[in-house]
Amino acid sequence: MSASETEYLTQLGQRAKAASFILASLSAKQKSALLMEISHQLGERKDDILQANAQDVANAKANGLTDAMIDRLMLDEGRLAGVIADIDNVIALADPVGNESESRVLDNGLRLTRRSVPLGVVGVIYEARPNVTVDIAVLALKTGNAVILRGGKETITSNKVLSEVIRSALAMQKLPQDAVQLIDSPDRSIVSGLLRLDKYVDMIIPRGGQNLQRLCAEQSSIPVILGGIGICHLFVDKHADLVRAIDVITNAKVQRPTVCNALDTLLVHQDVAAAFIPNIASHLHSLGVRFHACDKAAGHLDGLGFDVTAAHDESFSTEWLSLTLGIKVVSDIDVAVEHIRQYSSGHSEAILTDDIHAAAHFMNQVDSAAVYVNASTRFTDGSQFGLGAEVAVSTQKLHARGPMALDALTTYKWLAWGDYTSRP
Amino acid sequence: MSASETEYLTQLGQRAKAASFILASLSAKQKSALLMEISHQLGERKDDILQANAQDVANAKANGLTDAMIDRLMLDEGRLAGVIADIDNVIALADPVGNESESRVLDNGLRLTRRSVPLGVVGVIYEARPNVTVDIAVLALKTGNAVILRGGKETITSNKVLSEVIRSALAMQKLPQDAVQLIDSPDRSIVSGLLRLDKYVDMIIPRGGQNLQRLCAEQSSIPVILGGIGICHLFVDKHADLVRAIDVITNAKVQRPTVCNALDTLLVHQDVAAAFIPNIASHLHSLGVRFHACDKAAGHLDGLGFDVTAAHDESFSTEWLSLTLGIKVVSDIDVAVEHIRQYSSGHSEAILTDDIHAAAHFMNQVDSAAVYVNASTRFTDGSQFGLGAEVAVSTQKLHARGPMALDALTTYKWLAWGDYTSRP
Repeated sequence: MSASETEYLTQLGQRAKAASFILASLSAKQKSALLMEISHQLGERKDDILQANAQDVANAKANGLTDAMIDRLMLDEGRLAGVIADIDNVIALADPVGNESESRVLDNGLRLTRRSVPLGVVGVIYEARPNVTVDIAVLALKTGNAVILRGGKETITSNKVLSEVIRSALAMQKLPQDAVQLIDSPDRSIVSGLLRLDKYVDMIIPRGGQNLQRLCAEQSSIPVILGGIGICHLFVDKHADLVRAIDVITNAKVQRPTVCNALDTLLVHQDVAAAFIPNIASHLHSLGVRFHACDKAAGHLDGLGFDVTAAHDESFSTEWLSLTLGIKVVSDIDVAVEHIRQYSSGHSEAILTDDIHAAAHFMNQVDSAAVYVNASTRFTDGSQFGLGAEVAVSTQKLHARGPMALDALTTYKWLAWGDYTSRP
Repeated sequence: MSASETEYLTQLGQRAKAASFILASLSAKQKSALLMEISHQLGERKDDILQANAQDVANAKANGLTDAMIDRLMLDEGRLAGVIADIDNVIALADPVGNESESRVLDNGLRLTRRSVPLGVVGVIYEARPNVTVDIAVLALKTGNAVILRGGKETITSNKVLSEVIRSALAMQKLPQDAVQLIDSPDRSIVSGLLRLDKYVDMIIPRGGQNLQRLCAEQSSIPVILGGIGICHLFVDKHADLVRAIDVITNAKVQRPTVCNALDTLLVHQDVAAAFIPNIASHLHSLGVRFHACDKAAGHLDGLGFDVTAAHDESFSTEWLSLTLGIKVVSDIDVAVEHIRQYSSGHSEAILTDDIHAAAHFMNQVDSAAVYVNASTRFTDGSQFGLGAEVAVSTQKLHARGPMALDALTTYKWLAWGDYTSRP
């Protein structure tokens, strides 16, 4: 990293930290007023935003991005209205900051309490979708945090206008604009520099693919919330209802195959493999699903009239994000659990069974953020879980696991009131 | 790192992970039986342990370690009895594993609950004191975690025997010995390798000085709990009771100067500096305290008959761990807060004041793990806070902050029971 980049990042960090101290003192009412101002300004500046986004879309087309990519970065009136409506939902949520717990008076008379407070400065590194710029800024401000945003270069024009609108709303509320800062340099070394800014940044949230997650885990000296990568499994036990199973598996695989809680690998107990695999595969095939199957599963797929790819180790290590499904026959539930332990990203796993012992065993033995009995993996989501907002879906174990709600953007401090009290 | 080191660490990690799955299923009763066995075996093997420790002490003397260092690594009958008594205390604590919270039934009928579970595998890197080997193994086992221990080379003989005794207790309880593994190589590259073992290790706790903490923050791809570094401040406000202040400051500085919650920098409001500094300094000087003072503070120390060192930026960035104290005169409470924000390690800070506004302002504005009004910083401690056990004192904001109790060694998973439920 060059000296000028270091200087740039240091100033960015200092400004964010200074702003964070002011934000930390705001009341819930002041933060709501700010979010209402942001919501209002986004509506007022609608034309500028859509025009900037049209520029990003034009650039994306000129650069030959796929239609799927272009669809992800595109904003229109309807999507922008959705982004604004989401702000209103966040305003309505309870403010987790200031809540006190574990309060007690110690033997020496010291009155102790644990108060929830904002983290301080949150750094978010994300790709493609410009709505993340607004979503994450709003969640950070709601919880009294400053935020440093680093979006993808494909949406830089949109992100500049969106962050500028948010900053102008901050100014209108007489709050420091540097509570929201956008890194607009496309230079990748800036990301590496941001990951070492531990003096000023308290948490890094990477919202993007495997490479971004890995980069952050390896390079960051700031605590990172890894997440959003789901290699998800569903195990059809020998005691599963093989008729009702069809709908659940179809939901898990087909409803929205491009998201992290979609099904990647179907594990089938060998006792029901012959009866079940042809049925589920035919049904899924009719919906456009392709298969990577282990030898045994492939045997049950013979003669169904469609091609099947032989599954390798890599098949089971892949988050498909598409209408592809791995299928594997396992000799019993423990082999299913073993497979999940080896290949899962720790996001979401499910068992289908009518046997209470199998259900309990699976729940106890599988160590992922969300474990389901007789339900689709698609439920792993802050909104589905009733958490209000979703900051990210954590696949790591510290601080927050699974869908992260507002309180994951807070920490706590211990406060103690004495009367000139010394330790005995 | 050599190929053989990589292979060694991979196997170490795999064995720990395999053991962790067995530990995670133990009942509180089984874990208590295990800890009782460890307590019993440590008593039975007392002579072996003390003999091994005598070897470490002899080596330390031969290598010219300071008396203070030798005292830290020394075990005798009394200290070993203390280590064993601490196990009995841990046995008596509630088991945080298995507790369910946030339970609710969603609109779609899905029954959701959040169950606390062990983290899995905890890696602990520590220095000198051999009691940490037992303390941390016991806390990890109590919470159903496997642990990989990497102690200092000065206590390697003691640590080998202590870990072997714990492993034999595991075997006697028919539990996997690899729940507790000691890295006995003195090679530093092993530490770097351990910090990248994210496939198997879920949390790293460094218990040691600034260099170790920094190494872990920079090199680890595993979440790290930084802590145990306390650059602690106490601010004497203009409305402080200047008589009662003497005892509290003396307690914070002198009671046990070598620990992280001892006072490092005394900040004094300029309005009371002339009246207070000569008194407190004379008293502390009589107890052996030396001073690094800013210009203004030094002015108030003139003519007291002892030498004062001029404070530089570095003086205020130092965790003294000795009878040295920085003193600085500040023009008001906000300058005190600003100084703390710049120099504090985020551990413990205190204000002495009789003014309720100053007290509230300090509590709100200072962002450290523990903030005190009219009390000594020495209280920041798991036992003093009534938390039962202390795994470490975290100075970071994610997962756990301040004294970490047993629950900091757990995470949670979301469990969902459906009836072949699909997402609408």
